[in-house]
Amino acid sequence: MIAHSFQGEVFGPAQRLHGATYVVDATFRREELDADGLVVDIGLASTTLKAVLGELDFRNLDEEPAFTGKNTTTEFLSRAIFDRLVAAIRAGRLGEGARGLERLSVTLHESHVAWASFEGAV
Amino acid sequence: MIAHSFQGEVFGPAQRLHGATYVVDATFRREELDADGLVVDIGLASTTLKAVLGELDFRNLDEEPAFTGKNTTTEFLSRAIFDRLVAAIRAGRLGEGARGLERLSVTLHESHVAWASFEGAV
Amino acid sequence: MIAHSFQGEVFGPAQRLHGATYVVDATFRREELDADGLVVDIGLASTTLKAVLGELDFRNLDEEPAFTGKNTTTEFLSRAIFDRLVAAIRAGRLGEGARGLERLSVTLHESHVAWASFEGAV
Amino acid sequence: MIAHSFQGEVFGPAQRLHGATYVVDATFRREELDADGLVVDIGLASTTLKAVLGELDFRNLDEEPAFTGKNTTTEFLSRAIFDRLVAAIRAGRLGEGARGLERLSVTLHESHVAWASFEGAV
Amino acid sequence: MIAHSFQGEVFGPAQRLHGATYVVDATFRREELDADGLVVDIGLASTTLKAVLGELDFRNLDEEPAFTGKNTTTEFLSRAIFDRLVAAIRAGRLGEGARGLERLSVTLHESHVAWASFEGAV
Amino acid sequence: MIAHSFQGEVFGPAQRLHGATYVVDATFRREELDADGLVVDIGLASTTLKAVLGELDFRNLDEEPAFTGKNTTTEFLSRAIFDRLVAAIRAGRLGEGARGLERLSVTLHESHVAWASFEGAV
Repeated sequence: MIAHSFQGEVFGPAQRLHGATYVVDATFRREELDADGLVVDIGLASTTLKAVLGELDFRNLDEEPAFTGKNTTTEFLSRAIFDRLVAAIRAGRLGEGARGLERLSVTLHESHVAWASFEGAV
Repeated sequence: MIAHSFQGEVFGPAQRLHGATYVVDATFRREELDADGLVVDIGLASTTLKAVLGELDFRNLDEEPAFTGKNTTTEFLSRAIFDRLVAAIRAGRLGEGARGLERLSVTLHESHVAWASFEGAV
Repeated sequence: MIAHSFQGEVFGPAQRLHGATYVVDATFRREELDADGLVVDIGLASTTLKAVLGELDFRNLDEEPAFTGKNTTTEFLSRAIFDRLVAAIRAGRLGEGARGLERLSVTLHESHVAWASFEGAV
Repeated sequence: MIAHSFQGEVFGPAQRLHGATYVVDATFRREELDADGLVVDIGLASTTLKAVLGELDFRNLDEEPAFTGKNTTTEFLSRAIFDRLVAAIRAGRLGEGARGLERLSVTLHESHVAWASFEGAV
Repeated sequence: MIAHSFQGEVFGPAQRLHGATYVVDATFRREELDADGLVVDIGLASTTLKAVLGELDFRNLDEEPAFTGKNTTTEFLSRAIFDRLVAAIRAGRLGEGARGLERLSVTLHESHVAWASFEGAV
Repeated sequence: MIAHSFQGEVFGPAQRLHGATYVVDATFRREELDADGLVVDIGLASTTLKAVLGELDFRNLDEEPAFTGKNTTTEFLSRAIFDRLVAAIRAGRLGEGARGLERLSVTLHESHVAWASFEGAV
């Protein structure tokens, strides 16, 4: 649940300070399941995703140093969260089984009809 | 898609400036349908609801004079929008058929799981 | 999945022959559960609702004798289906346990945002 | 995510040991908002609901002493969770502001189309 | 909200004149965001999609010259709308930024469970 | 609506006998529509999917011979149902038109937020 504003005439009234609720989904892909029959430990995945989102939640993104000079659009944020989740996977925070993950996508739903997603290799 | 902040320890991190997307539903009730077989003219109802929401959308509610000194919680806003819709019905903006409406409820969905609603007589 | 048209200027382009998918929910209410711990036998309720809907599905409602001279709006149809379900309950088609049902509501969803409902005593 | 079985011919194949995911919603109602502009502290409400559900999650309900001799139908369980939430409200676990709550409903969604609910005074 | 009928025994009762509500989603894909941090101008995209759908809405598709001799199945219509949106993108109706779009998919939801989609290069 | 338990510390409380409702979607893909303008006969596809699911519904999967020694995780089950649907397609149970299907995905939704999917060539 963040506040932000956008730079650029294309944004119209969204150039004013406003806000959004993002409902965030992460999708993990791999060719073969791990030894437990899992794609990923959903408990660790949820905890890690919540931790990543906790760094942004209830904030004014216009004041976040990491995003200086950027429009924090839904599509920009989906990439930013993707990058942080990939770093967490590589650091082992989703467990050893998660080393077999091949692709990740992160989707931010900004309303019941509008969303953006970023997908790439882990 | 509004920005706002809350006053009061109960709000924790939501005391910071943050934001929310509200998906807003209005429900109209009456005992008998009008002569066209309608509860309400859904075209006029949609147009009027959009106009009411347009007064709040893409804004920082902390700076709205109408809400000075109030926490613009989801439940508070559902009542505020209810009041504006009732005024529009009484002013005839939903058509003559809408004079037969008896009850109205306004629901604000702030995420896929959290919502608040206000219901009362028209 | 029905075709129909409406009479009356209020309907604008919906005066032309067009169509709609209705997703139909029935909600049954009672003070006390029956001896099996049920509000209603969901199997019999589903079968009966499907039979009632089967009388209308894949048809042009403009040609249904039961609806002559009526606008088959979503709100009108929710009442028509309510009446047929109540008749089925009284005829015992939902089982003996269903004799204890007190209220019924029928909701027709015509899109992901628009719906109409009729509720009354059984 | 519970396992259970039912007693009674009306249940057909559900007399076998099987299982269900329940998605549980609680709805709190009151005439007037509290001093903070809230119906209820959603943080405390969520924590308490999770604690109540945690007593039942990942279990075989056929072996729960509290439910001996009962069919743990969706409608039965919605009442059981309602009773535990009301007890928590009265015990002050949802905060002092929650003393003003008047009605509560608990809904268990057992699939995307089937649900049961219990509503009553707090 | 269209009316239509189908030719072919495989369609059973859907050979009769009936109708459907289609909820239509368009998904735009590109490797890199544009200079504003966008995949596409969602305002222009929505306006253009509504204009494309407005050519079909509230009509009997059996009488549309563009579809003569075709079964206007959900999958057929998703392709037809895809083609019209691609033409609009190429004509610049989604703005200069949209020239960088690489793929488009169009999904028609015909009920809460059934849908069809067409995806291809822009 | 199945019961099962899991082997392995990673599963925590899900090592106990518990259960789940799975809402199952099948998605069929092909380059070109068949002669009737269809991807697949949705009636035959629904009937066949229900038959495949009927082999598993209202059962304790710990006692299913086909799954001995396996954790019947959501991701494992999506593959198992995929395999059975592919066999049905090859056996002609979805009709001659279905011989042109190229890819199939099967998705099991285990709650409103968690799901797993398997996709492959038919």
